Amino acid sequence: MPSTPEPGSVAERIVWTRSRMGLLAGIAEEFSRTRPFAGLRIGVCIHLEPKTVVLLETLRAGGAEVVATGNFGTTLDEAVAVLREEGIDAVGSANLSPDEHLANKAYVVGSEPDLVLDNGAELASLIEPLGRRGIRGGTEETTTGALRLRGGEVACLYPMIVINDSPLKLIFENEIGVGQTMLESLMRETNTTPAGKSVVVVGYGWCGRGIAKFFRDFGGLVTVVDTDPVRALDAAVRGYEVRTLLDAATTADMLITVTGHPGVITAEALFRMPDGAIVANAGHFGTEIDIDGLEAVASEAQDVLTESRSYRVPNGTVTVLAGGNMLNLLCGSGNPLETMDVGFAMQALSLAWMVTHAGGLDNVAIPVPTEINNDVALRLLKILRGYTP
Amino acid sequence: MPSTPEPGSVAERIVWTRSRMGLLAGIAEEFSRTRPFAGLRIGVCIHLEPKTVVLLETLRAGGAEVVATGNFGTTLDEAVAVLREEGIDAVGSANLSPDEHLANKAYVVGSEPDLVLDNGAELASLIEPLGRRGIRGGTEETTTGALRLRGGEVACLYPMIVINDSPLKLIFENEIGVGQTMLESLMRETNTTPAGKSVVVVGYGWCGRGIAKFFRDFGGLVTVVDTDPVRALDAAVRGYEVRTLLDAATTADMLITVTGHPGVITAEALFRMPDGAIVANAGHFGTEIDIDGLEAVASEAQDVLTESRSYRVPNGTVTVLAGGNMLNLLCGSGNPLETMDVGFAMQALSLAWMVTHAGGLDNVAIPVPTEINNDVALRLLKILRGYTP
Amino acid sequence: MPSTPEPGSVAERIVWTRSRMGLLAGIAEEFSRTRPFAGLRIGVCIHLEPKTVVLLETLRAGGAEVVATGNFGTTLDEAVAVLREEGIDAVGSANLSPDEHLANKAYVVGSEPDLVLDNGAELASLIEPLGRRGIRGGTEETTTGALRLRGGEVACLYPMIVINDSPLKLIFENEIGVGQTMLESLMRETNTTPAGKSVVVVGYGWCGRGIAKFFRDFGGLVTVVDTDPVRALDAAVRGYEVRTLLDAATTADMLITVTGHPGVITAEALFRMPDGAIVANAGHFGTEIDIDGLEAVASEAQDVLTESRSYRVPNGTVTVLAGGNMLNLLCGSGNPLETMDVGFAMQALSLAWMVTHAGGLDNVAIPVPTEINNDVALRLLKILRGYTP
Amino acid sequence: MPSTPEPGSVAERIVWTRSRMGLLAGIAEEFSRTRPFAGLRIGVCIHLEPKTVVLLETLRAGGAEVVATGNFGTTLDEAVAVLREEGIDAVGSANLSPDEHLANKAYVVGSEPDLVLDNGAELASLIEPLGRRGIRGGTEETTTGALRLRGGEVACLYPMIVINDSPLKLIFENEIGVGQTMLESLMRETNTTPAGKSVVVVGYGWCGRGIAKFFRDFGGLVTVVDTDPVRALDAAVRGYEVRTLLDAATTADMLITVTGHPGVITAEALFRMPDGAIVANAGHFGTEIDIDGLEAVASEAQDVLTESRSYRVPNGTVTVLAGGNMLNLLCGSGNPLETMDVGFAMQALSLAWMVTHAGGLDNVAIPVPTEINNDVALRLLKILRGYTP
Repeated sequence: MPSTPEPGSVAERIVWTRSRMGLLAGIAEEFSRTRPFAGLRIGVCIHLEPKTVVLLETLRAGGAEVVATGNFGTTLDEAVAVLREEGIDAVGSANLSPDEHLANKAYVVGSEPDLVLDNGAELASLIEPLGRRGIRGGTEETTTGALRLRGGEVACLYPMIVINDSPLKLIFENEIGVGQTMLESLMRETNTTPAGKSVVVVGYGWCGRGIAKFFRDFGGLVTVVDTDPVRALDAAVRGYEVRTLLDAATTADMLITVTGHPGVITAEALFRMPDGAIVANAGHFGTEIDIDGLEAVASEAQDVLTESRSYRVPNGTVTVLAGGNMLNLLCGSGNPLETMDVGFAMQALSLAWMVTHAGGLDNVAIPVPTEINNDVALRLLKILRGYTP
Repeated sequence: MPSTPEPGSVAERIVWTRSRMGLLAGIAEEFSRTRPFAGLRIGVCIHLEPKTVVLLETLRAGGAEVVATGNFGTTLDEAVAVLREEGIDAVGSANLSPDEHLANKAYVVGSEPDLVLDNGAELASLIEPLGRRGIRGGTEETTTGALRLRGGEVACLYPMIVINDSPLKLIFENEIGVGQTMLESLMRETNTTPAGKSVVVVGYGWCGRGIAKFFRDFGGLVTVVDTDPVRALDAAVRGYEVRTLLDAATTADMLITVTGHPGVITAEALFRMPDGAIVANAGHFGTEIDIDGLEAVASEAQDVLTESRSYRVPNGTVTVLAGGNMLNLLCGSGNPLETMDVGFAMQALSLAWMVTHAGGLDNVAIPVPTEINNDVALRLLKILRGYTP
Repeated sequence: MPSTPEPGSVAERIVWTRSRMGLLAGIAEEFSRTRPFAGLRIGVCIHLEPKTVVLLETLRAGGAEVVATGNFGTTLDEAVAVLREEGIDAVGSANLSPDEHLANKAYVVGSEPDLVLDNGAELASLIEPLGRRGIRGGTEETTTGALRLRGGEVACLYPMIVINDSPLKLIFENEIGVGQTMLESLMRETNTTPAGKSVVVVGYGWCGRGIAKFFRDFGGLVTVVDTDPVRALDAAVRGYEVRTLLDAATTADMLITVTGHPGVITAEALFRMPDGAIVANAGHFGTEIDIDGLEAVASEAQDVLTESRSYRVPNGTVTVLAGGNMLNLLCGSGNPLETMDVGFAMQALSLAWMVTHAGGLDNVAIPVPTEINNDVALRLLKILRGYTP
Repeated sequence: MPSTPEPGSVAERIVWTRSRMGLLAGIAEEFSRTRPFAGLRIGVCIHLEPKTVVLLETLRAGGAEVVATGNFGTTLDEAVAVLREEGIDAVGSANLSPDEHLANKAYVVGSEPDLVLDNGAELASLIEPLGRRGIRGGTEETTTGALRLRGGEVACLYPMIVINDSPLKLIFENEIGVGQTMLESLMRETNTTPAGKSVVVVGYGWCGRGIAKFFRDFGGLVTVVDTDPVRALDAAVRGYEVRTLLDAATTADMLITVTGHPGVITAEALFRMPDGAIVANAGHFGTEIDIDGLEAVASEAQDVLTESRSYRVPNGTVTVLAGGNMLNLLCGSGNPLETMDVGFAMQALSLAWMVTHAGGLDNVAIPVPTEINNDVALRLLKILRGYTP
């Protein structure tokens, strides 16, 4: 055990986080021997908080010079301080103007990195104006960033591995991680249980099926809403009720949306919910619930709990948690450390793979190579069960 | 919606709590018409916090004059203030000496109540020294209190209904409430998931079977430890691994005890746990884990997270959450509001029943009458499903 | 492997059965050394089929002289033949008149047994007319027999252990055994799946909760009907829909009754079921479904499948499986061998216990002694997991 | 209800089957109005049994002239008779020589069909030698057939829709249908329960995950074996034990293989299984279990039950069910009628779609068009829940 950080500090949280990210720990140990990034600079743009600190430490263990900045509005100053102490050139802070944020990203790109670790294609969007400057390749964390690169909104000027495409992410982070932490954070914020309640899950993709499963496991009578017939049938043959949103909303004690589409939970649906209904969003963007519409039609509203707000509707009171933003981030601790460990292990291994493979690749966004998915799966099996297939 | 209390205040929490305890709300509404306690005084000794505030308001709605004090060390000053504002004679505060606490209980008994609402037989234990003084009967919340009354440690000088015996409590509070909130609070404190982990549940009573079920639902590979062969077999035929504690501890990523017995999680068992193991207690008393023994043998220890402590053992680090106290209280919000609503509805209805039935009863501790169990079940079915069998 | 019996014969089925009843095998091995029944005669009245053959062999291994007859209408002639070959004095056959059956029971009682193994109190009911004749005590398999003895319909003239009271039976045979085999036999008879279907379970006792669970596990959207509010609530907080029979019947694709009460599934309920509905009974008596009433109101009826019958009702066709008799017996193989092994192990050990304890007991029906429950549980844990708590 | 067929006859089974295939019934009703196949001939090669009779009746309702023969060895003579009575030109019988079978297929191709409904590419393999003769397009039921067409083993001379690729098939037939009927047929053949048993599932594809889930639901302690690391991890984070085959076999009470690969269950693995172990195959081909190898090393063997065989191995006796062939076909009734209904509805709709779309397609094997998947899903939702998303 290293020297004791302040109780409750970010530094203490980093110590705990480090101890729970066994994949990164193992990779760091290997990297410190193999030094895949020796002599290379990695430019990074990602939330700077305890979990990413451990990721950047891993890259550094592999010999990389790391130049990093945060995403807009999510940087923890203490995390930046810890990184700087460890010799990582981290810039940024919690409260920046958009211009300051842009300057930081330009600083990262301007450092002429060999590889980039990108989030939302924020760095990639600066490459065309600023020039490629010797970047060999990189990784992109999010589906949003991948869509920008693949759709042509941002030019893809070097090969990029999209982490979020991996089946490991879909299973472990979307279905299990999001599903479980949505339940945890809803209970945390409200101190209520789904047991015996009518629970409506809107959207039956990977996240939605996790949410539906875990709320049913906890005694909810779960209804699934999805406009895709195959998904709706998938839910039906697993014993869920399937209904339309407007119909399901009228009896929903709890309603959770995770569709990826803005405004799907209309003010009309919210307006007809029963007294006491609780509404939450698990989707990436805080736009799935039409809160403005609800504010307009509700006869009264007031803040409740730590991050929530109740609205007076005809049948009584409806409470929207976390302002319609991702509940498990706002009223929880985000995804479990183990699921982040999987995603970040793929980041670290993909960057190392890119060092030796970039030369043979086209300048497009590609999925995580099968060998890396398999490698991460094997490492985690070893940790969880001491097992190799 | 009533006038807005301070965000984050106990008063705000009481507003939320009131809105989620539909059984008490319905009973209060009835009581305000039927006035079962008109002209009667009820002496109370129970934790004074938001949930009990709603219970005492319900008794008051039934016409009772309520004189109340808290249990030792669990009183929230703001809750006392709210009660006093509402005309309830509440005494006590968070930081009292044992003598002050005793004086408060004596004050309640000295008020010559007609009925008592007791917790842990705290008031009952003063009756012999102070005299019965016209108490007709009462209720006892806990199994601990019931044991004291039935075992003769405390003389039972009037008929007492033991709330905790009810099948509704066993199902809804012990199995579901404790099971779910243990999972929630473990995730809240540690930001980890049981998915893929080896989870050991020690004690397969009502609470234990809930914990085992919910951790398995969340992807844990669950082992049950119970020295009772019938319970162990019950676990085995439901697909749990069953092992002895010392054997199971060696591979436990998470270990949760809920046996009701002190010291069952021995220092020897803790000492042989694998690196990274997490240990928690769901039992009423914080004595199931031998923390003193662990402190003695661990080569090093340090506080981590908000309420936890890590110990250096031969295989690495073992973390005990919440100092071995009830995790879902210390690192959570206690049982869900709905499960407390069931218990408190039985309290309110049992006290009203006692008014008309006490005369025909012996001075013993009795279970909740079947008619009250049925009444509460019917009321909750009505709330949950709008349904009457 | 012993000499090969005829494929498909009862003898072959007995070989298989013997190989799957590990508790009885272990007890027989012990009994052959300890000889608890040396010099004693055991009078038996029970279904004579492969599973009971193995039980009677176990008693014989313990030194007993066994005199046995079947229950009315359930005797397999080949099983009698096998028993007689092994030196057991078995009488009876598949097709007997009531007088012949009575004569067989009188023969068993007339053999002046020291102990009796009874089923439905059939032997006990002859004791008063024929005289006790030295019987020290016995066992009773069924709840029905226990009710006759405890209700005074049949005089209890010696101590009787009621096997069906044991928690092991409730968990393993009622919940798991009946629940699973009802699903299996419904699928076997109809080649349909509950996945995506509306399934109604009437009666939420031990059997009912097993049926509800397993049909939900298989994708059914399960509704529970129970007039007991506590049971109905228990179902509701586990995520089942709860409704009244008449309401639930209108949308039931599958309806299963297991209430123990005659006529609960009324012709009115059956008459309003949707087209294609399937109805089955899991209760001991084939009287829960009012088939006579349905025959009276249905405009048409015809036999279908192997043991079933379809009725024309206003919405289409309703099919009652197995004539309303226990589906898992008529269209299945009864309870799994392992669950029968548990019940019969308790029979064998209870009879041995009675030899040494009968002297100190009153002439009443008592539950299986805790030490025997524990003994059987330990033996099964050892078989299943090689484990001792 | 139509006139009553002989009890137990194929004709009676067809009546029941027809009543449970609601998708085909609805499509037949539509086809009888829209007549998509008016003036067209459809050549068919598929198992001729009750379920396919209903499919061919549906094509006929759409105006098709149908010329059909069976696959080798699976034709029921009574099914052929029923089809001929209904004016379908069906040829074939249960016992044919390979030459007779070939002649029947040549007869179908020689009838110069406009469309073909093929199974295993049996008809397609005759097209090159016999000539295309005006075939516009067709459907292929199986993955095996698709592989032959896509791999070039059989020339694909017209556009073919591969039914088995559909997500509806993967979910409803592979995961749910196979998973459930494997459990049902294992219980049917052996009268045993997985409750409390160690169950090993080899292969964690769509079928395997269904089998693992349902055996765990029934109380099995399930271990998954898969050499693919991502699949093995998927199983691990859902709480299954993951091990290698040779390790898992040593403690397996039940072992089920569904890998699609021959010989994966080696004689070595079988040889080290514990006494009483039960082994079954859910894969399409009866070659996954090395029975020849086991016969060679077992010291003794004998037939047991209806379709099974026990082998003497060092630890005792191991029983292989159904000779290693698909257990749910040999000892069960195959997939549930509802899952076959889904596949056959896709057949009927795909053939109708081909009439209008064949002109614009390449001569390749293509997946079921999304609009047909959606159409079938919508129809089934309507049947199951009266619901349209």
